[in-house]
Amino acid sequence: MLNVLNREDAVALVREKTASLSPGTEKVNIRDAGGRILACDIVSSENVPSFDRTTVDGYAVNAADTFGAGASIPAQFEIAGEIPMGEKADFAIKRGQCVKISTGGMLPAGADAAVMVEHTDCDEDLCLIYKSAAPYENITRKGDDIAEGETALKKGTVIGPAQTGVLAALGITEVEVCKKPVVAVISTGDEIVTGSPEPGQIRDVNTFLLSAALKQYGCDVFGYGAVADKRDEIETALKECLKTADAVIISGGSSAGARDMTADIIGSLGKAYFHGIAMKPGKPTIFGIVDNKPVFGLPGHPLAAYFVFRLIVTAYLRSVMNLPDDKPLCEGTLAANIPSNHGREEFLCVRFDENKKIVPLHTKSGIISVLSEAQGFIRIPRNTEGLGKGTVTEVFSL
Amino acid sequence: MLNVLNREDAVALVREKTASLSPGTEKVNIRDAGGRILACDIVSSENVPSFDRTTVDGYAVNAADTFGAGASIPAQFEIAGEIPMGEKADFAIKRGQCVKISTGGMLPAGADAAVMVEHTDCDEDLCLIYKSAAPYENITRKGDDIAEGETALKKGTVIGPAQTGVLAALGITEVEVCKKPVVAVISTGDEIVTGSPEPGQIRDVNTFLLSAALKQYGCDVFGYGAVADKRDEIETALKECLKTADAVIISGGSSAGARDMTADIIGSLGKAYFHGIAMKPGKPTIFGIVDNKPVFGLPGHPLAAYFVFRLIVTAYLRSVMNLPDDKPLCEGTLAANIPSNHGREEFLCVRFDENKKIVPLHTKSGIISVLSEAQGFIRIPRNTEGLGKGTVTEVFSL
Repeated sequence: MLNVLNREDAVALVREKTASLSPGTEKVNIRDAGGRILACDIVSSENVPSFDRTTVDGYAVNAADTFGAGASIPAQFEIAGEIPMGEKADFAIKRGQCVKISTGGMLPAGADAAVMVEHTDCDEDLCLIYKSAAPYENITRKGDDIAEGETALKKGTVIGPAQTGVLAALGITEVEVCKKPVVAVISTGDEIVTGSPEPGQIRDVNTFLLSAALKQYGCDVFGYGAVADKRDEIETALKECLKTADAVIISGGSSAGARDMTADIIGSLGKAYFHGIAMKPGKPTIFGIVDNKPVFGLPGHPLAAYFVFRLIVTAYLRSVMNLPDDKPLCEGTLAANIPSNHGREEFLCVRFDENKKIVPLHTKSGIISVLSEAQGFIRIPRNTEGLGKGTVTEVFSL
Repeated sequence: MLNVLNREDAVALVREKTASLSPGTEKVNIRDAGGRILACDIVSSENVPSFDRTTVDGYAVNAADTFGAGASIPAQFEIAGEIPMGEKADFAIKRGQCVKISTGGMLPAGADAAVMVEHTDCDEDLCLIYKSAAPYENITRKGDDIAEGETALKKGTVIGPAQTGVLAALGITEVEVCKKPVVAVISTGDEIVTGSPEPGQIRDVNTFLLSAALKQYGCDVFGYGAVADKRDEIETALKECLKTADAVIISGGSSAGARDMTADIIGSLGKAYFHGIAMKPGKPTIFGIVDNKPVFGLPGHPLAAYFVFRLIVTAYLRSVMNLPDDKPLCEGTLAANIPSNHGREEFLCVRFDENKKIVPLHTKSGIISVLSEAQGFIRIPRNTEGLGKGTVTEVFSL
């Protein structure tokens, strides 16, 4: 009989045993990189912008020439020309000169600031400036956005719109990202059916729930479907999945006997590391390695299966995809007392009320609908009497 | 010259003018429905579960028969049989009888509670129960999860793993979702290039940034690419985009003249409703309708373009896809004073420090990297002197 672990120890064991089992990396175009995870740091090989730019429409000047200028004492400049947008400012201005420039235009040599057109009064050759400018005022300097040699994006960053923008700014069109792990999902249980359930039977929820969750975490899914709680059927399914997948999730069966059978199969084909975590929901969780691939046994109840996915399976996914550790969404204040005296760490779906207080969503086993109503979940530590109304606690995203 | 609007008025106008421009709905398999938006309420046509189930391994009983039982005074039952998992309990138990049952098994008629095997001492025919059970104890009743006639999921819900699970539990394999709006992106500016920039030129960031953001909001993207700030080029691009897209975004040019040209083109081909919003960043925003399709003119600076996308363009997307209104991620406390005296509503990227306080990420115009470092943004209302250190304020997701 394997020991029951604390969640922290279970997570550490999963990370340790799967650390070297990364599915590798691949190159993708940045147009298709949304949601993918950077496999290495992006170090800038150039300055962005690559030249000093003005951030206003107006006149580029040497700031020192404006010192002392004000609403009633304009500084006077000779207009040396105009910098067309997108063209190189290939001349220098002398002291006392200025050039007309549009937002985003390149500063000529000799200029170190820009004055908004609103603070000037100009004719063709002469420009009066009614405001003094500090050096670098209204200027984005070369490298201000991203400097040459700077780590613009860190390994493990999820590529969202902003990161795609940074890559585009650096002229990078292809990036090295983590390959999507292929995870197989097997749903077991004599009561689980794929078609219409007869009395006593229920529909396979976990294949769909876990597949969608896996896709959200950037995995490809091999949905094996539902099998009965029979040793040979589960063993056949597991072997079949191990042929194509990087990891396998077996959810259910819900009875103690069925769970022991799953642990037995994992142990006989490879090595089972734990069977049971001191958490609620999620106690009957199994973890092992078969053929150098992680195999997770999840509870049959959808809500419990989801919490184990979210808290245990994602430890493996985060580890092999170099994702940062899970962080709480925010903190909030409990709207009600939450009793808990299980000696187990407890996880509870919550929503926010109209005063932004945290409302626990208590539920029975086997319920899926509460998950679709929840806006997050909270953690109640082991060996407490629960959490009192008014307690400030962290809320995690589902 | 069109008026400058407050953001709220701009959003209201966008919603009003685009309310009837929905791209319609389509059916998708729930396996492919992740991230899509429900086009109608999902009302359950059945009870989930469809029968009373036990949530423990043990014995199903009539609760009343256990009343008074305790650790030293067991109640005695005749074992009437066993309910195999997944099979119909097609017999009734009499008073004084119990049946063996596994977690998830169907309760037979006559039983209304289950007792965990740990609280029993049984041989083949006789079972002693050392604990009294309340009616419905350890039972999930028919319809407890989702009752027949209940609205299980509301129109406008984003389909995530939990929602996919609910649909699977209801036996629904196809759902009606909003069609993905096709949005075209045109990047304008004489300084914008697609290849390697010469001095004075910069790379096209907005096409990539906005395309990725649009995909995140569930749109299909038609990336037209970069065009110069020339009236005929922009007009040609806009007409081309209107052939295939449901909406068009034109970002840039950054100079006042270029912006006026974009507003002119929209006005001449259709109707421009506003040019300018009293917000920072994002002042030079244009909105109009051409060929019954919304056209947005966004600032050229990536950060400003992104905020206008996030605050204005998504008002259109939320409206036509029936998405719920934008809600803050959470509340937090400012770690520093934030001055603001622009008479404009201001939006600022922020991150959280190690004490979970909000740190503003001040930045110059034209910067993209700050967006990739930010964990959210805050709003500073119009006509304030800014927000003081210690102020509790709402943080919105980027």
